[in-house]
Amino acid sequence: MKAVVYKEPFSVAVENVPDPKILHPNDTIVRITSSCICGSDLHMYEGRTAAEPGIVFGHENMGVIEEVGAAVKDRKVGDRVVMPFNVACGFCKNCLGGFTGFCTTVNPGFAGGAYGYVAMGPWVGGQAEYMQVPFADFNCLPLPEGTEHEADFALLADIFPTGYHGAELAGVRPGESVAVFGAGPVGLMAVYSSLIRGAAEVYSIDHVPERLAKAAEIGAIPINYDEGDPVKQIKDRRGTGVDKGIDAVGYQATKAGSSAVGGQQDEVPNIVLNQLIDVVNPTGALGIPGLYVPSDPGGVSESASRGALSLNFGRLFEKGLSLGTGQCNVKQYNAYLRDMIISGRAKPSFVVSHEVPLDEAPDAYTKFDRREDGYTKVILHP
Amino acid sequence: MKAVVYKEPFSVAVENVPDPKILHPNDTIVRITSSCICGSDLHMYEGRTAAEPGIVFGHENMGVIEEVGAAVKDRKVGDRVVMPFNVACGFCKNCLGGFTGFCTTVNPGFAGGAYGYVAMGPWVGGQAEYMQVPFADFNCLPLPEGTEHEADFALLADIFPTGYHGAELAGVRPGESVAVFGAGPVGLMAVYSSLIRGAAEVYSIDHVPERLAKAAEIGAIPINYDEGDPVKQIKDRRGTGVDKGIDAVGYQATKAGSSAVGGQQDEVPNIVLNQLIDVVNPTGALGIPGLYVPSDPGGVSESASRGALSLNFGRLFEKGLSLGTGQCNVKQYNAYLRDMIISGRAKPSFVVSHEVPLDEAPDAYTKFDRREDGYTKVILHP
Amino acid sequence: MKAVVYKEPFSVAVENVPDPKILHPNDTIVRITSSCICGSDLHMYEGRTAAEPGIVFGHENMGVIEEVGAAVKDRKVGDRVVMPFNVACGFCKNCLGGFTGFCTTVNPGFAGGAYGYVAMGPWVGGQAEYMQVPFADFNCLPLPEGTEHEADFALLADIFPTGYHGAELAGVRPGESVAVFGAGPVGLMAVYSSLIRGAAEVYSIDHVPERLAKAAEIGAIPINYDEGDPVKQIKDRRGTGVDKGIDAVGYQATKAGSSAVGGQQDEVPNIVLNQLIDVVNPTGALGIPGLYVPSDPGGVSESASRGALSLNFGRLFEKGLSLGTGQCNVKQYNAYLRDMIISGRAKPSFVVSHEVPLDEAPDAYTKFDRREDGYTKVILHP
Amino acid sequence: MKAVVYKEPFSVAVENVPDPKILHPNDTIVRITSSCICGSDLHMYEGRTAAEPGIVFGHENMGVIEEVGAAVKDRKVGDRVVMPFNVACGFCKNCLGGFTGFCTTVNPGFAGGAYGYVAMGPWVGGQAEYMQVPFADFNCLPLPEGTEHEADFALLADIFPTGYHGAELAGVRPGESVAVFGAGPVGLMAVYSSLIRGAAEVYSIDHVPERLAKAAEIGAIPINYDEGDPVKQIKDRRGTGVDKGIDAVGYQATKAGSSAVGGQQDEVPNIVLNQLIDVVNPTGALGIPGLYVPSDPGGVSESASRGALSLNFGRLFEKGLSLGTGQCNVKQYNAYLRDMIISGRAKPSFVVSHEVPLDEAPDAYTKFDRREDGYTKVILHP
Repeated sequence: MKAVVYKEPFSVAVENVPDPKILHPNDTIVRITSSCICGSDLHMYEGRTAAEPGIVFGHENMGVIEEVGAAVKDRKVGDRVVMPFNVACGFCKNCLGGFTGFCTTVNPGFAGGAYGYVAMGPWVGGQAEYMQVPFADFNCLPLPEGTEHEADFALLADIFPTGYHGAELAGVRPGESVAVFGAGPVGLMAVYSSLIRGAAEVYSIDHVPERLAKAAEIGAIPINYDEGDPVKQIKDRRGTGVDKGIDAVGYQATKAGSSAVGGQQDEVPNIVLNQLIDVVNPTGALGIPGLYVPSDPGGVSESASRGALSLNFGRLFEKGLSLGTGQCNVKQYNAYLRDMIISGRAKPSFVVSHEVPLDEAPDAYTKFDRREDGYTKVILHP
Repeated sequence: MKAVVYKEPFSVAVENVPDPKILHPNDTIVRITSSCICGSDLHMYEGRTAAEPGIVFGHENMGVIEEVGAAVKDRKVGDRVVMPFNVACGFCKNCLGGFTGFCTTVNPGFAGGAYGYVAMGPWVGGQAEYMQVPFADFNCLPLPEGTEHEADFALLADIFPTGYHGAELAGVRPGESVAVFGAGPVGLMAVYSSLIRGAAEVYSIDHVPERLAKAAEIGAIPINYDEGDPVKQIKDRRGTGVDKGIDAVGYQATKAGSSAVGGQQDEVPNIVLNQLIDVVNPTGALGIPGLYVPSDPGGVSESASRGALSLNFGRLFEKGLSLGTGQCNVKQYNAYLRDMIISGRAKPSFVVSHEVPLDEAPDAYTKFDRREDGYTKVILHP
Repeated sequence: MKAVVYKEPFSVAVENVPDPKILHPNDTIVRITSSCICGSDLHMYEGRTAAEPGIVFGHENMGVIEEVGAAVKDRKVGDRVVMPFNVACGFCKNCLGGFTGFCTTVNPGFAGGAYGYVAMGPWVGGQAEYMQVPFADFNCLPLPEGTEHEADFALLADIFPTGYHGAELAGVRPGESVAVFGAGPVGLMAVYSSLIRGAAEVYSIDHVPERLAKAAEIGAIPINYDEGDPVKQIKDRRGTGVDKGIDAVGYQATKAGSSAVGGQQDEVPNIVLNQLIDVVNPTGALGIPGLYVPSDPGGVSESASRGALSLNFGRLFEKGLSLGTGQCNVKQYNAYLRDMIISGRAKPSFVVSHEVPLDEAPDAYTKFDRREDGYTKVILHP
Repeated sequence: MKAVVYKEPFSVAVENVPDPKILHPNDTIVRITSSCICGSDLHMYEGRTAAEPGIVFGHENMGVIEEVGAAVKDRKVGDRVVMPFNVACGFCKNCLGGFTGFCTTVNPGFAGGAYGYVAMGPWVGGQAEYMQVPFADFNCLPLPEGTEHEADFALLADIFPTGYHGAELAGVRPGESVAVFGAGPVGLMAVYSSLIRGAAEVYSIDHVPERLAKAAEIGAIPINYDEGDPVKQIKDRRGTGVDKGIDAVGYQATKAGSSAVGGQQDEVPNIVLNQLIDVVNPTGALGIPGLYVPSDPGGVSESASRGALSLNFGRLFEKGLSLGTGQCNVKQYNAYLRDMIISGRAKPSFVVSHEVPLDEAPDAYTKFDRREDGYTKVILHP
């Protein structure tokens, strides 16, 4: 079958690879109909990880079940399904606690697995014609048959739940004010989710005008950090800080005035965290779905390379803040968010900028990495 | 009246000061029967804060109501009461949310007030014969009349709830494993509270043998960090880390091999935080009642002086940890912990090492600061 | 001053009564600008309670502070404020727990007080020119000065929070399906609040076409119980029941085919509760803000008269349902809902049908009681 | 193999039945080492259910894995395991929400399955030499190898978690007061669990002196309802009611003065529920693990036969009470309670009165049903 294969930094190719097989009685094989390119794919693409050439990318996958293993109970051939980017077993201690992003079964020696991602276990990615899905009863979320809402449902694999996770980690409740740093796809989903949860005021902080425009469109108040300290901008408007904050940026945060695409030289990995400590009011909470890593070959400093960041912890303590971090446990939210899509109460596909055939993946990667031609969120259709 | 007055670093005196007065109709005057010396009093005593000479110390206070203001409704002369160290109004946004440690009414321009503490508002301390208590209906917790459980009840002002707050911030639940760093009075109360909440295994990490012995007595597993990396010791015993962690040490954390009393040269302010990140299992939570400050004149480095600490944030994120910080909201817990004392289910006074007359405060401060003669927790009786 | 005084069943009059006075240093006097008539006022109006002639009605009150007592700290003359219908002290055990609808201070011997309501304490109602408000710092919620959003803010005294309370008691979360019984003002607010909280599908059950039309307008699916068993209608549509249910009807529930206004002979006091048990899926939850009383002089049977209802408890248990009941603790929500109104995210005044001068209260009561001329929610302006 | 087979009301026999087989790749076969007789087995034994002759009893099972299906991942031959009485899949909506007592996969058309129980699916009971366990990775909780704590671990199948569930449904927290109705095995476990969770005062209500003595031994205050209205007894002692209440009795509740064993003629199925409504303070919560059924062939009245009970709902509403019901979701708690047993913090086997060979099951059933010879909790060892 054809699949998107990583060749070397800044290069992927669509190549023939072996078809996936049922390896375990709880497996299914899914024929992929949509697989998104994620910002975190670019970490690998740019050589900012230990990913080796040959890896098949793709952790945001949906499709139709083509084949089921002998032990699969509730999923059957022909079911339209979307898979959480987290691979999970459903029965380890972490899965039982709802922390399916930290499954200890699927990636031995580590808590958490994913499709098509370096160090996240043996699971081949879904930017391909077919994909093996283990523990299929647990990992395949059923969808209404047909083709409706394809782009919306595809976002259930990762970014809609991940943005929602930010709001959940911050404990966003009706009537609260929220600052969301980053208006890329996850940031926009965090804004959107905060509004879904009833936030009274949501500030969206970024410096890319198109992103800020999108945030404003869905109801956020845009704050361009190239136009001045975003914390000051928010406090000036409100006369105080906000109740809750969400970091949808992560360790590649950049300072004001850096180019829209960013670049290593402009990175200030702790800037968003310290701005959050500053802008969130005492007793508030920070939700941090944005990625921080314990090992970054391209870190801007020795300490950044090992994920050690200088935080204004005295201030954080004085304000009595709490914070939550980590990969989204997609399984916690995906069925509920699906039902919002079905009933018409949510339509997250407004973030999708491009849908292209699988064959055009190399071009899409190039443009998305450079944020050329408005590439913000791409869905590949095999 | 007589009161303990701060003179200069390492010096307090018992002096005559003006009697407190009803200044507002919601005030009471309490005749103090017990007022404890707290480890955080030593921050001022040692000159590690901006405290000016003349301040009357004492934020852990109990006694009997001597006089009530015209607006006081439910408290009356003769009531035996204990006051949270936090002064709080009961009606600001933070108080309404239960965050009485972050009251915005009692210390204008800041979230949080306390008796007898630098920068915590105009409230005179209770290491004295009498004390003014504002918002008396809210701040005076009634106790059974008489003299029973005096030492236990006195600990309701601060350290019993503060230790409990650590367990609450970490979300300690029945059957969990917990690592509590620090076995001073607050650390022991965190151990005790974790056990009250049903923890299956509690590790108490310190390097003072007497403290560790006390922790073992109440059911903890003692870990002496002078005998090796405490994280490794715990992981070796368990084959894994723990579910939850509590930092009852704060910014004056010291490295292995430092003298029992500690000393500035031995301080490694981020050591406990990074050990917690290391020892707590993925998906776990950290409760941090131990004090961190945004400004420390005696910090071991420029960054430490402004409360900026290097945290292994990449690791924390990878593990999906959450953390909660800040002063205890005593009012959230004190009535419940009082009822446990009354029914005989809790007896926190096991941490009290000395009870002395108010006149002996200077000597008690000296010995407590040096941890001489087994001084670990002192109650002054005016 | 002028006030709405209860004369006898089905009769109120606007009469002169003594001006309220500051009786306690924590009191304020509020000049009323808006006071709503509530469905529960009709219980008294219809003689279905022990209310004696002479009582001044009005528990949904807002206005401007005219005078403050000596102990009031944060509220001042000229502040525009809205008061929860619950009178509460802010410092009793229940208030501290957030249960301000069950204050034990303001109505001795009972848990809960209210303005202008039989058996709810000595608090004179606000369908008048002025009103005394005790514990003013706690009970007066400040509003932006001016006259904007007057009708929206007036609903913060009771029905918007009460509807929201239904959603809170049922634990409505994003993506869930909810059945709300009753589309009167509280029911509509429960529908609206469920949607604010992110519900995917909300069913509104009533039999008054105008109410159902209003529910549909704000996004609910209307179910007319005169057209068939509402449980069956919902299950037929969904193929299953719903996640959560809300009872916004209470003990005067009527069976299908009763007249729009209802009437004692049509009452089946347990019908909604048993329908909820039937329509909510196993593991679900029921929020019950609709009023049930332990003593109803006009009950349809002896057992109904003492509030004893036959519930399908075996079924409820088999399904593992939970339920929450009771008066709304307005103070838990009102500041947050106010902020949603200010930011434009909520506009609850769509339920207001009429705004009339205080003098027209007798006519408004008559029409509202008969649901004539579209009277569904009336605001009186003194 | 040998198994306990139901013959007719008041009669079981140990007979040869076919050995269980691996029927699905996720199955295991467990060699049973301990299987308890549960009070709910007596419902079938006494003919109070629709159970047909031939059913093999036993839903409280532990043992050693003898054989594993091809898809089982983490469990292996030789593992010592205990199974929740609920059979659950781990991936249906209810299981994902933690409601494993309401699994919709294992008992088609119904929410919830169990071993050896009428109407709870095709799962053969474990009062036998071997038992088939489906979804073995999910349903088999691993235990330390060996034979230590056998009786304690056996109680993890049902009554320890079920008692704990009562405390969880009531939200019992440190420092609270709790009334537990019923001091049979589940009631004692509810008392024990409330204490584990830090309750300050626990009242145990029953009328069997031996049970009350046991409750007192573990720290409860015994209340004998044959000596007067238990609600009055508690209120007289406390001057008020309690914070929380637990019903560990269920629909076969009996009035004061009935014989120790009870009997149909003494049943008052709603008595405990209404006493709970009476004894729990306003704003409190009721946890109801005690069984109520929608269909009881032996009900004391027509309405009781269909599970319709008269509740003082007006009073419940006035007090703002909440309540939670239903079968325990054992999987939510069993690993944590296991860890408390392993660390020595819990030893629930104090409730076990007899351990006998499987062959003596008929005699044990007879005596347990009659509560002869101190039979309160029996473990069968095949």
